[in-house]
Amino acid sequence: MGKTNPGRFFEDYEVGDVIRHAVPRTVAEGERALYHALYPARHALYSSDEFAAACGLEGSPLDDLMAFHVVFGKTVPDISLNAVANLGYAQGRWLKPVYPGDTLRAESQVIGLKQNSNGKSGVVWVQTRGFNQVGEIVLDYVRWVMVRKGDLDAPAPETVIPDLPAVVPASELVIPEGLSFEDYDFELAGAPHRWGDYEIGEKIDHVDGVTIEEAEHMLATRLWQNTAKVHFDATFREDGKRLIYGGHVISMARALSFNGLANAQMIVALNGGAHANPCFAGDTVRAWSEVLDRAETSVPGIGAIRLRLVAVKQGAEPFALKTEAGKYAPEVLLDLDYWALMPI
Amino acid sequence: MGKTNPGRFFEDYEVGDVIRHAVPRTVAEGERALYHALYPARHALYSSDEFAAACGLEGSPLDDLMAFHVVFGKTVPDISLNAVANLGYAQGRWLKPVYPGDTLRAESQVIGLKQNSNGKSGVVWVQTRGFNQVGEIVLDYVRWVMVRKGDLDAPAPETVIPDLPAVVPASELVIPEGLSFEDYDFELAGAPHRWGDYEIGEKIDHVDGVTIEEAEHMLATRLWQNTAKVHFDATFREDGKRLIYGGHVISMARALSFNGLANAQMIVALNGGAHANPCFAGDTVRAWSEVLDRAETSVPGIGAIRLRLVAVKQGAEPFALKTEAGKYAPEVLLDLDYWALMPI
Amino acid sequence: MGKTNPGRFFEDYEVGDVIRHAVPRTVAEGERALYHALYPARHALYSSDEFAAACGLEGSPLDDLMAFHVVFGKTVPDISLNAVANLGYAQGRWLKPVYPGDTLRAESQVIGLKQNSNGKSGVVWVQTRGFNQVGEIVLDYVRWVMVRKGDLDAPAPETVIPDLPAVVPASELVIPEGLSFEDYDFELAGAPHRWGDYEIGEKIDHVDGVTIEEAEHMLATRLWQNTAKVHFDATFREDGKRLIYGGHVISMARALSFNGLANAQMIVALNGGAHANPCFAGDTVRAWSEVLDRAETSVPGIGAIRLRLVAVKQGAEPFALKTEAGKYAPEVLLDLDYWALMPI
Repeated sequence: MGKTNPGRFFEDYEVGDVIRHAVPRTVAEGERALYHALYPARHALYSSDEFAAACGLEGSPLDDLMAFHVVFGKTVPDISLNAVANLGYAQGRWLKPVYPGDTLRAESQVIGLKQNSNGKSGVVWVQTRGFNQVGEIVLDYVRWVMVRKGDLDAPAPETVIPDLPAVVPASELVIPEGLSFEDYDFELAGAPHRWGDYEIGEKIDHVDGVTIEEAEHMLATRLWQNTAKVHFDATFREDGKRLIYGGHVISMARALSFNGLANAQMIVALNGGAHANPCFAGDTVRAWSEVLDRAETSVPGIGAIRLRLVAVKQGAEPFALKTEAGKYAPEVLLDLDYWALMPI
Repeated sequence: MGKTNPGRFFEDYEVGDVIRHAVPRTVAEGERALYHALYPARHALYSSDEFAAACGLEGSPLDDLMAFHVVFGKTVPDISLNAVANLGYAQGRWLKPVYPGDTLRAESQVIGLKQNSNGKSGVVWVQTRGFNQVGEIVLDYVRWVMVRKGDLDAPAPETVIPDLPAVVPASELVIPEGLSFEDYDFELAGAPHRWGDYEIGEKIDHVDGVTIEEAEHMLATRLWQNTAKVHFDATFREDGKRLIYGGHVISMARALSFNGLANAQMIVALNGGAHANPCFAGDTVRAWSEVLDRAETSVPGIGAIRLRLVAVKQGAEPFALKTEAGKYAPEVLLDLDYWALMPI
Repeated sequence: MGKTNPGRFFEDYEVGDVIRHAVPRTVAEGERALYHALYPARHALYSSDEFAAACGLEGSPLDDLMAFHVVFGKTVPDISLNAVANLGYAQGRWLKPVYPGDTLRAESQVIGLKQNSNGKSGVVWVQTRGFNQVGEIVLDYVRWVMVRKGDLDAPAPETVIPDLPAVVPASELVIPEGLSFEDYDFELAGAPHRWGDYEIGEKIDHVDGVTIEEAEHMLATRLWQNTAKVHFDATFREDGKRLIYGGHVISMARALSFNGLANAQMIVALNGGAHANPCFAGDTVRAWSEVLDRAETSVPGIGAIRLRLVAVKQGAEPFALKTEAGKYAPEVLLDLDYWALMPI
């Protein structure tokens, strides 16, 4: 036998390895429609070809997070099949919009390894790149996961911990070619608030809540060809629960953030993120944001805003984040740090 | 703060106001596929490009109700966020088919206002128009809603009640350019019954029932970018139930009506409608129709049929509608009055 | 009245009858996206236009089973509305790939009839053909169903039992025009195993399990315009359960078989199949395969592999199939026999 994929164990990674992930994927208008059915997404640039064209693009790109999920999904069989935990993200950048009809594939390079002191697992850092059909990098990010050892007697590798910046510098944000907010229609976009209207430290409660169903998160996760069994198999965990893919919570929270951040149109960088607590079907997800920073970009009229996006579930205090002990409050699901582009 | 949308209150409307609704939306083949996954839709004109071409159209349009839902969804943040009840529809007409790739946006004009005698709310009448990317009106309808006052001390506006016809006159129905039923293939369409085979007063039980799941109505409602929290947030109502968007019931009933009305292909007018009782997940929806009228149109071979479409849930008596007291029976969900086009 | 479809009863079929099924259907990228959302489908040829082009095709075809489901769905109102049981399949062949934008319709010819000895029902054999918009046959298969008699006094027809081969001979498999595995990229496809690596008799456990939700199987079944009420109406069966369309289990099992059979790319023949036990929401579906045969094809580099695909639910023994009494074990849902194409 041996024809099924056992996944990689900690000892199977070596710093410098490049893994070419399987199953390229053409994404098109069907995926766009499903994204709108799965999340209350309303950012105008991703909703209307006409609005996007008025902003200098060739049409409405697929949601930036859709590109992320597709690329991430490709990495699961090679990176996180035997993962105990998804520990973090850093240095993520969106480099090219993805349009309907594009075909995405992904590669990851191992950039760090550290065996845990218990000798049973270790941390693997990978830099993942998503490519389109003409070989352009559309997305680039680092994530690190804790992976079980398959052979406990395998020797520990030399520890290599990559030097990761806490934040992508604003100077390194890539503005899509042609993007312009000169003729931006705030009324059609749904809110009058510009980049200059947001103050560092400002917090926004996005008001609305969405209760999640099993069918929805499974449809979404399969759509990204992420087939990790913990999301699909009710017989896998002892409690009979299916863990919701963390990316589903990211997309839900981002979509909810329209109500308060309607003009934070494009996500251009992922500075970091933590899936603070697991999310299960039946949970009602809400979101709030904090303005962490603002910066001008290389393009006049386009500002960058650095946002903390926090997803919480039912029972959370207003603007819940951490307890006095410095841990995430139990109702906090996600703490994400990203840069978006707004009209100045 | 103040960056989230509080919605408008009764005192925020003035007769004559035109509201340009936010977030235009490109609808394409993905939305068509989802429509077929969400509803048992089988009318051939909306299922097959070949069938539609044989009827003189450039291809299969998107379902008429999809155009309605998308336009309606755009109006929610401006019209019904603080609505207590959706009271009625009138004078609805479909003026242009919507094709995959079209971009829709919407505007509403306030055409009537009447404060309730309790001083806490009032009725707002709006005429809503949906536009495609070249500025053509694709859809036009009046609806009226009861909206809460935000400031109970705000003075009552002058009462203006629009004069609305009970029925769109057959002479005002718009037949899509090029539409012809000369080469209509009744076998492929699924039934031999022509316009002339239906008698005024005839009632048809559409036989089949569909039990609705939470995931389904939420996918549908989000797809139309209708994000009213009552449909999504299980913590919002005291009983923990999510109210199903009335349009979901309309589309379900219309799709079920294929079995008996397979040749009532295009919806061209909405004369009126009432969401008689709320629908919740777990309800099994059935439908019946009554032929209210028939009329010839300006195009030979194309007849108009005026139908009452009634959706009911489990426990309903055959052809249930009203009780002896003249109220809707508790199992009646929808009472819709529309004109459709059929081959003569 | 009499305007709704009562379905055909056993006495309504005559050997030689050709039934032209209703409601042609255009299938496009939306259906492809939904297929990926509904099933964990990852075969590269159906996921990536680039991968398919490298294999000599004009782009990524729609999943072969999607073509089957759409054609099958068309036959339901004419063949199985009054069916007691779906008894078997034989002699199925895929003759042309279906591409986004194609319009499918179906015809069935009655090729066999046998009244049951109880006089209350009988077996009907039909050969069904699916056509694309230019009249090419894309799919051809035989199925037989047990159908109730409507009029118990109707005379029994002459018994005609078609002579059906147990297996489609390898020499009759149709290789799509242009298909070539010369530049096949095993790494992108997700596994290194070629046709020559599989031995007759080899069994593969596909490892992963998927728990099925009501919303999912109803979305799928509606998408194929299969509106048989037993799948949708929770008030129809006494136990309140909705029976899952057997084709949903076929697609789920085939998608799961990627893990072990990633290079069994195209399904070209259906030799037979049994829906061994009913599947209901809440069941967790797993799959295993057995290599039944291998054959070369007319095209160098393309091998045919004959596979038994078995779907089971929770509680099944490893490689569960039949009990000592020769009946299907109660956890077995599906026993399918098909030919697929693999790179040699």
